[in-house]
Amino acid sequence: MSDLFSQSLRDVLKVSASSEPTPGGGSIAAITAGFAASMASMVCNLTIGKKKYKDVEEQVTRIRDRALALMNRAEDLVQADMAVFGRFMECYKMPASTDEEKERREHLIQEALKGATETPLDIARAAVSILELVDELAPIGSQMAISDAGVAAFLADAAVRSALLNVDINVPLIKDQSFVAKALEHKNGLLEQAAVLKDRAVATVSRRLQSS
Amino acid sequence: MSDLFSQSLRDVLKVSASSEPTPGGGSIAAITAGFAASMASMVCNLTIGKKKYKDVEEQVTRIRDRALALMNRAEDLVQADMAVFGRFMECYKMPASTDEEKERREHLIQEALKGATETPLDIARAAVSILELVDELAPIGSQMAISDAGVAAFLADAAVRSALLNVDINVPLIKDQSFVAKALEHKNGLLEQAAVLKDRAVATVSRRLQSS
Repeated sequence: MSDLFSQSLRDVLKVSASSEPTPGGGSIAAITAGFAASMASMVCNLTIGKKKYKDVEEQVTRIRDRALALMNRAEDLVQADMAVFGRFMECYKMPASTDEEKERREHLIQEALKGATETPLDIARAAVSILELVDELAPIGSQMAISDAGVAAFLADAAVRSALLNVDINVPLIKDQSFVAKALEHKNGLLEQAAVLKDRAVATVSRRLQSS
Repeated sequence: MSDLFSQSLRDVLKVSASSEPTPGGGSIAAITAGFAASMASMVCNLTIGKKKYKDVEEQVTRIRDRALALMNRAEDLVQADMAVFGRFMECYKMPASTDEEKERREHLIQEALKGATETPLDIARAAVSILELVDELAPIGSQMAISDAGVAAFLADAAVRSALLNVDINVPLIKDQSFVAKALEHKNGLLEQAAVLKDRAVATVSRRLQSS
C-alpha cells in the first residue's frame, strides 16, 4: 500500500472498499481533489492553442500549470494521510501496563490525532486552491469543454467537505484545546471559502451552458 | 484507452488532465461514483462482524453487496461514456459533400448526441442509488467510520451533479424535442432525489459525529 498511485484504478477502488484501514476517507478526498485538478487542467488544454481563446492563452497556461502542480500535490497528501493513519494505529498497539507506558502512549496518540487533523486540513486547503483556479477558469475556458469546469468545481467542493469530516471525527479526542480551537477556525474558514468559490464557478458555468 | 480501470491511478489522472477527449467529465463523474460506493462498502465492512452492530449485520451486509455491485457498474458506465464519445467524434470525420452524405452524417450525430445524454443520466441514476444506500447506512453504520459515510454522500452527490452537466451541454444540440423534454424531466428528478438523500445522510452523519 506504500504507493497507491502505481496501483490500477480497479485495485485502488477494491482496497478502498475493503475493511483495510487505508486508504480511508481523507485519502479518497485527496484523490477526488486530484480528479478535480485533472478536469481543470483538461479544460485548459482544450483552450490553449485555439485562435478563439488567444487573448487568454497565457492566463490559461498559468492556470493549467498550477492545476497540474495541485494534481501532483494530491498524491503527496494521500501518502501523508495514509502515513498519519499508520502512526495512529501503531499507538494503539503500544504497551500500557505502567504509568510511564500509559503516559507515553497517550502522548503519542495525542500527537497522531493532531496529525490526523492537520492532514485533512491540508487536503481541504489544496482543494480550495483548485476551486480558486476553477473560479478563474470558468469565465474564460473553452465553451466546448465548459461543463468539465463545472465537474472540477463539484469534485473540488466535495473533496473539501469530505476531508473536513476527518477534522470533525478527530477533534473531540484532542485534549489541547488551543489546537482544537485553531483547527475548527481553520476548518470553518475553508468551508466558507469553498462555498463562495464553488457557487460562483458553477453559476458561471451554468450561464455559459445556457448561452451555448 | 480501452480499459481505463487496468491503468495505474497516476496514469488515469494524467490522461484525464490532458487534451485527450476521453476520459471526459462524464467518465470522471462515474469514477467518483465508484469511489463513493467504495466508501459506503468500507463503512459496511467495518460494521460487519462487530458485536455492537450485530442487530444490523444482515442489513449492512446487503448494503455492502449493493455498494460493490454499484462500484462495478461505475466501471461499465465509464466504458459506455468513452464509447459514446468515440462515436460522436467519428461522426464529425464523416464526409458531407452530397445531400445524402450530409443527411446521414446529421442523423448519426443526432443519435450520438442522444447517447451522450443517456449515458450521463445512467451515471447520475447509479450515483443516486449509491446515495440511497448511504442514506440507509448513515444511521446504523459503525460510529468509528461514520465520517466515511459522509464522504460517500458528498462524492455521490458531486457525481450526480457532474454527470448531469453533460446533459446540459448536449440537449441544446438535439432536435428531437420530445427526447429533450424527457431527458430534462429525468435530470430534474434525479437532482431533486439527490438533494434530499444527500442532505438527510449528511445531517445524520453530523448528528452522530457530534454525539461521539
